[in-house]
Amino acid sequence: MPSPEAVTAALVVIGDEILSGRTKDVNIGATADFCTELGIELTEVRVVSDVEDDIIAAVNAVRARYTYVFTTGGIGPTHDDITADAIAKAFGVALPINAEARAMLEARWTQTGTEVNEARLRMARIPEGGTLIVNSVSAAPGFRIGNVHVMAGVPKIMLAMLEAIAPTLQGGRKIKSVTIRCRVGEGTIGGPLGQLQGEFPDVKMGSYPQMGQTFVMTELVLRSSDEARLAEAASRVREMVAEAHRAAGLSPDVEAY
Amino acid sequence: MPSPEAVTAALVVIGDEILSGRTKDVNIGATADFCTELGIELTEVRVVSDVEDDIIAAVNAVRARYTYVFTTGGIGPTHDDITADAIAKAFGVALPINAEARAMLEARWTQTGTEVNEARLRMARIPEGGTLIVNSVSAAPGFRIGNVHVMAGVPKIMLAMLEAIAPTLQGGRKIKSVTIRCRVGEGTIGGPLGQLQGEFPDVKMGSYPQMGQTFVMTELVLRSSDEARLAEAASRVREMVAEAHRAAGLSPDVEAY
Repeated sequence: MPSPEAVTAALVVIGDEILSGRTKDVNIGATADFCTELGIELTEVRVVSDVEDDIIAAVNAVRARYTYVFTTGGIGPTHDDITADAIAKAFGVALPINAEARAMLEARWTQTGTEVNEARLRMARIPEGGTLIVNSVSAAPGFRIGNVHVMAGVPKIMLAMLEAIAPTLQGGRKIKSVTIRCRVGEGTIGGPLGQLQGEFPDVKMGSYPQMGQTFVMTELVLRSSDEARLAEAASRVREMVAEAHRAAGLSPDVEAY
Repeated sequence: MPSPEAVTAALVVIGDEILSGRTKDVNIGATADFCTELGIELTEVRVVSDVEDDIIAAVNAVRARYTYVFTTGGIGPTHDDITADAIAKAFGVALPINAEARAMLEARWTQTGTEVNEARLRMARIPEGGTLIVNSVSAAPGFRIGNVHVMAGVPKIMLAMLEAIAPTLQGGRKIKSVTIRCRVGEGTIGGPLGQLQGEFPDVKMGSYPQMGQTFVMTELVLRSSDEARLAEAASRVREMVAEAHRAAGLSPDVEAY
């Protein structure tokens, strides 16, 4: 559960191509890294198909719950790009051609000798009250309305848009982490690790098995916004792991980073 | 919107490590491919953190709506593995040690000389009424209760469990697809493509820009469970693309696969 002062976020990934398996999503991982970097807790992700009602329901559910909402996908010029329509309906506002967005697009089109047509002008439609998110890659802007940031699905453009909005977001307390590698399986250290978690409720302890063909290893990840408590917990976990190594007949050395 | 006879599914990915960016998820893509292969429409994905209430809310929301629910993550031996607890609460049933699960685990532990302890026995707890999903990789089973299939987060084990449940799932009508590559941007063909989509409501047409440093390309993906209509639509889209190539001064050849 995020602490009361935590800055939280949800990501809504929009697109049939992710759900059919045709495109393998990379925007979830990129957004997660982006949020962690800024001290924003990404708390939920939803992937929905190109169905207007589903997009509206997902966005309305998460925008009421989290500080920020990010969406990715569905803002291009074709009939299956319906994110702007869905967001306008979610906020109950109109979706006119935005003069600033049109100017950005026309500047690019003039440069590249691209014809202005109805399909392309779809990309200048911005919900009333929305402000633009600059697209340094291909000009067609995203937009922000309320706490919702609507961005492109193409990973390169999505990253450029995240960079563009970063200065406008209020970051939270940054979460620091320590990773401790353990050369025994997680079943071996599960008991004592759980006890240490009980002693350090303010340091979140995660346990992740690493499986090779011939080895078992466990990565323990400790996360907290309180560096002193994190260091204290890490020292206790290292002792516990050294003890487990000793009991398994291994050298007690513990690798932490 | 899936057709009434469609077999649908949702995936719930459980784990702080995905939301922090520490682990990049690959189970969404694998589950999407698995569903498409079986003719199941994966309609929604949610990623939630290791918070019991959030897992319960997500699972209860999707299990009421879709034919099948798959979950991945949180079934190991450590304190942060709370998926079984959350699912038992979602169904309002107890979570006892399951004799069959315990036997599977003990057989493996005897083989490997692994000590039975409380942490490891957590993995034998199965919600009352649940049936086991065999884990051919590391013995600790998943389980099915109602329409919910609870599986491991480690991708290799997740894949083994999907293979194990495949024969128990009712597949739907398989969706066939045709991909047509277009050497002009999607803004150029957006108008005529939208018209063709209007003529073929039973063939879903998606448009995906491909961006290189020096080229713009568009992949058009047509999907339908009706092969005859799919072929008809594909032929019309190919004609439309050839025309767009001609108008752009390119050879009218169209690559389809």
